[in-house]
Amino acid sequence: MRLEILPVLGIGHVTEGDDLAALIATAAPWLRDGDVLVVTSKIVSKAEGRLVDVPADGPERLAARDEVLAGETARVVASRGATRIVQTHHGFVMASAGIDASNVDKTQLVLLPVDPDASARELRAALQQRYDLDVAVIISDTMGRPWRNGLTDVALGVAGMPAIRDHRGEIDPYGNELQLTQMAVVDELAGAGELIKGKCDQVPVAVVRGYLSAADDADSGGATALVRDAAQDLFSLGTAEARAAGLADAAALVDSLSPTPPEPAAVRRAIEAVAGVIAPGTAFTLVDETESRAGLIATVPDWPDDATALVLGTAPTPLEPVDLVRFGADLHRLRVALAAEGIGSTLLPPPAGSTASATLAL
Amino acid sequence: MRLEILPVLGIGHVTEGDDLAALIATAAPWLRDGDVLVVTSKIVSKAEGRLVDVPADGPERLAARDEVLAGETARVVASRGATRIVQTHHGFVMASAGIDASNVDKTQLVLLPVDPDASARELRAALQQRYDLDVAVIISDTMGRPWRNGLTDVALGVAGMPAIRDHRGEIDPYGNELQLTQMAVVDELAGAGELIKGKCDQVPVAVVRGYLSAADDADSGGATALVRDAAQDLFSLGTAEARAAGLADAAALVDSLSPTPPEPAAVRRAIEAVAGVIAPGTAFTLVDETESRAGLIATVPDWPDDATALVLGTAPTPLEPVDLVRFGADLHRLRVALAAEGIGSTLLPPPAGSTASATLAL
Repeated sequence: MRLEILPVLGIGHVTEGDDLAALIATAAPWLRDGDVLVVTSKIVSKAEGRLVDVPADGPERLAARDEVLAGETARVVASRGATRIVQTHHGFVMASAGIDASNVDKTQLVLLPVDPDASARELRAALQQRYDLDVAVIISDTMGRPWRNGLTDVALGVAGMPAIRDHRGEIDPYGNELQLTQMAVVDELAGAGELIKGKCDQVPVAVVRGYLSAADDADSGGATALVRDAAQDLFSLGTAEARAAGLADAAALVDSLSPTPPEPAAVRRAIEAVAGVIAPGTAFTLVDETESRAGLIATVPDWPDDATALVLGTAPTPLEPVDLVRFGADLHRLRVALAAEGIGSTLLPPPAGSTASATLAL
Repeated sequence: MRLEILPVLGIGHVTEGDDLAALIATAAPWLRDGDVLVVTSKIVSKAEGRLVDVPADGPERLAARDEVLAGETARVVASRGATRIVQTHHGFVMASAGIDASNVDKTQLVLLPVDPDASARELRAALQQRYDLDVAVIISDTMGRPWRNGLTDVALGVAGMPAIRDHRGEIDPYGNELQLTQMAVVDELAGAGELIKGKCDQVPVAVVRGYLSAADDADSGGATALVRDAAQDLFSLGTAEARAAGLADAAALVDSLSPTPPEPAAVRRAIEAVAGVIAPGTAFTLVDETESRAGLIATVPDWPDDATALVLGTAPTPLEPVDLVRFGADLHRLRVALAAEGIGSTLLPPPAGSTASATLAL
C-alpha cells in the first residue's frame, strides 16, 4: 500500500470562463478513477470570475480593499493593526476573508469562490460526464491558525468523498474505545497537495492517488461539515475583542439573579478581588457569614423572593457626599467582580434607616 | 516529480526502553537517504517511558488524571465542561496537554515526549550512525483546532529539515512580492503521514519519499519554530476566559491616563454605551464640547498636567444619599465603558463647591 502525490503540470494562467475540467483533463491524461484532485481555490475563483478591480496602489487601493473585505465578511473575529481575522459568509475563519492579491494583476483582487462545495461538485461532475473520470475534488486554500506559526493548505470545498473520517466507537488493541478520532482528512489531503505544489512552480492542481479505492458521493456534506458553529467554539472571538466585550458587559451590567445559588467561595473571591481597590473603611460581607440574614432581610425593602444570598456593603464613616459617590463606584466594582465569577446581582435600596450601607441580592 | 507516502508495517507494540531506530530500520529495510519519517509521538513516549500509572476507572482515575494534567500544564487557555485546552511546557496548545489513554493499558496514561525535537534528533542520529541512513524525522501528534471540526496530525518535533518553508520575498509571475507564505511544511508532512497511518491498522510510522532531495540539519530550529508566543497570538485565551478577564479588569480598574489623546468619537461612544443604564437625570459630557474646558479645569483640584480631555458628570437633583451612591456606580460604568474603548481615566474630586458633579480626566 502506498499513496502518491502528483503535480498536474502545464495548466498555465486561468482566466474567467475557462473550462477547468478540460484544462485538467488535458494536462493530466493520466488521471484515474479514485484519484483525489486538490485544486487551488484561486484558479476556481478566476474561472468563475470572482475578481474585483481595484486601484494598483495608494490610499484608493486600501479603501477599495477595505470595502471588498467588508462585503466578504460575516463578522470580525479579531483585529490587530492592519490584520483582520474574519468569518466569511461560508463560515470559514480566515485572515482578510481569503481575499488575495498574489498571482493576479496588480489591479485585481481574487475573492474565494461563492460556494466551494458547489464548485467541487461541478468540477467532479464535468470530469465524470465528459471525461468518464470518477475522481474526488478538493478545493484548497492557504490559511493561518492560532497558536502555531506558519500556514497550511486546508479544504474549502469537497465532492466525491466525506470531509471527515470517523473512528469513533472503534476499539483499540488494548480494549479502549476510541473517542477523539474524527479526522479532517480533506484538510490533510489539501496539505499533502500543497507539498508538491510548493515544490513546483505555479502548479495549481495536485493529485493524491491511492487514498480512495473509489470516489463516491455518499456522506457528501462537503467541506461545510468542517465549519464549527461559533456558539460551539471556545475561540469564537479574539482575546482582545472578548476582553473588551467583558468590559462592555461590566459597563452595561443589569440587575439579575443567578439561576442557582452562588458558591460562597466564589462570592468571597469576588469580595477579595476588589479588596485592594475600594475605599479604606468600606466593607463587603456575605450575609450568610454574619448570621444576621433573617434580620437583615426583614429590614431590606423589596427583597426578591428568588434571591438566595445577599452581600451587605457598608461605607466608611463619617460620610461626606464624595464618600457616597466612591461607595457607589465600589459597589459597582463588586457587582462586576461577582459577574466575573458568573454570579448575577441586584442592587437593592439600603436597609431602612441607613444611608451608609447598601445590599446586593444574589 | 512525485511524492510517495509509505507505511512502515510490522513495528508492533512498543514498550519502555525499546530501540526505535532498530525497530524502524528492521521493519523498513527499504528506507533511503532523504526520506522523511513521520513517527507517531505515542511510540516515542512509550519507548522513553513517558507513562504514568492511574486507576482503571472511578473517581480515583479522574482525580489522578487531573493531577497528571496539572503537571503537564504551563497555563490553562480555555475550558468548558470537562474540556481543558492548555499550553504545555513545550508551548503547544492542545486539549488535555496531549495526554492520551488510547492504545495503552487501561491503567496507564501516555504523556508527550519531554522534548520532541530532541527525540527527533536522537532518532535521526541513531539511524545515521548505526544504519547509515540520512533521513529527516518528524514526531507527530493529533490535534484539534479552533473554528474547524475534525482533527489533523501536526508536528511536535523535527530534525533533519526546517519546520517552515519560507517564500517571502519571492516574486509571482504578475510581479507581486509574496508575503504570507511561510508554510508549515512539517505540519503538512505530519498530516500526509496520517493519511496512510489512518488507512492501515496500528501503523505508527509513515515515510514521505521525494519531498527532500537530502536531509540536513541547516536551519534546524526544530518544531519549536512553530510555537507562537502567546503575546503575539490573537487567540491566547478562550473567549469566555478573556471575557471574564475583561470583567475582572473592570472590577479592579485603576486610575490611568491614555498615552495619546483619546478620539472624541470614542469618548462619545462610551458615553452612549452607558446612556441606557445610568440614573435618569445623570449626564456625562465630554468637556471639549461644552466650550467650558478652561473654566472647569480652573475649578478642579489636582488636575493632572498630562490629561488631554475631561468628562464632566452631573447627578440628578434633588440629591438624596441613595442618588449619590447610584451616581458613583454610574461613574464607574462610564470609566469601564471608556476602558472598553481603550481609554484610561482618572476620577478627580468634584469641582470646588459642587456635590452633584464629578470629573474624569482622560
